[in-house]
Amino acid sequence: MKEGLFITVEGGEGAGKTSVLHYIEARLRQEGHKVMRTREPGGIDISEQIRAVILDVAHTKMDARTEALLYAAARRQHLVEKVIPALQAGTIVLCDRFIDSSLVYQGYARGIGFKEVKAINEFAIEGYMPDITLYFDVEPEVGLARIEADRNRELNRLDQENLRFHQEVRAGYQLVLDQFPERIRRIDANRAIEHVQEEALRQVKAFLDAQMIK
Amino acid sequence: MKEGLFITVEGGEGAGKTSVLHYIEARLRQEGHKVMRTREPGGIDISEQIRAVILDVAHTKMDARTEALLYAAARRQHLVEKVIPALQAGTIVLCDRFIDSSLVYQGYARGIGFKEVKAINEFAIEGYMPDITLYFDVEPEVGLARIEADRNRELNRLDQENLRFHQEVRAGYQLVLDQFPERIRRIDANRAIEHVQEEALRQVKAFLDAQMIK
Repeated sequence: MKEGLFITVEGGEGAGKTSVLHYIEARLRQEGHKVMRTREPGGIDISEQIRAVILDVAHTKMDARTEALLYAAARRQHLVEKVIPALQAGTIVLCDRFIDSSLVYQGYARGIGFKEVKAINEFAIEGYMPDITLYFDVEPEVGLARIEADRNRELNRLDQENLRFHQEVRAGYQLVLDQFPERIRRIDANRAIEHVQEEALRQVKAFLDAQMIK
Repeated sequence: MKEGLFITVEGGEGAGKTSVLHYIEARLRQEGHKVMRTREPGGIDISEQIRAVILDVAHTKMDARTEALLYAAARRQHLVEKVIPALQAGTIVLCDRFIDSSLVYQGYARGIGFKEVKAINEFAIEGYMPDITLYFDVEPEVGLARIEADRNRELNRLDQENLRFHQEVRAGYQLVLDQFPERIRRIDANRAIEHVQEEALRQVKAFLDAQMIK
């Protein structure tokens, strides 16, 4: 492959995205692929500083549109400094959350609107849409139970939201899935992690194989 | 007046915007108007923090689109927390730079494109366009000479740009002026400050009188 592949994973809190990503990363490496796993802000100084502004618990007055613009700004800088150079070097980039998270969280759950949030994110990504997106679909109750079982997570503003919000997030992902049926593959993440990992890996490898044939 | 008026001033560096704004503010106050003078980030905590990220001299790697999104985010929060409440209280808001600065500096001079920068700013302002905008038009050489004469200004990244950039900024403002001929009033700012002040005040008062008649 001359150019890399841009793979993103999406889903509500507690869907198991992050651990599955680690698994996929390890398996692809074993098979000799050059892989980079990342998530915004991803150690990029400017993006980290922007994220700190978003997550500052003192910022209770932050307007939803301000927040959406800041996420788009952090996304842009992470993309330019980290994702694009890796893709140009032929790396498979595994990114934990990307544009779909903004469409769902800001566009749908916070009520700004899909079209509006899509516009500012299209400005931010300038054509760098993921080649494939794995959506880990989990029942809100299952996801929340997993979050509570995990004591080591750092609390942030998003975690303070309730079950109703998780339900809205899931409905939002369904709408995104409907809009991008070619790009996004739904994976049932209510099952045991081993099953989820295997299906996710299978989807990624099927996509890689299809790319090789082209 | 039940609702206030939203007046913005625009122009390149050294056009004299800020001192003219102080003059207009004082004269409108003398005539009994409720006036608020501001400029982004305007003491709004979230906007100030965003602006600090933009102006950090260590951020030489900042992408032009990241910067444009950050300006839009700071603009949004300043608008929501400061400008809109003042307008709702019937205040005349005098704002030193607003959407046109982004169209010119990011859209035109930095080459992102008018249409693109307009889209993210329309997201940020959500319909709150200025009622009237005074554009202080100055020859780049005159503006730069004024900047150098003023020793007390704090240096920032924008000041490091050269004459060529100032010329591009002026050409950008001409394009904005062509797009919004009803809203934007051009004022020749090459003249002595007293003349510029008087014409600016006359334009604002003519606009206020026209609003009263409506």
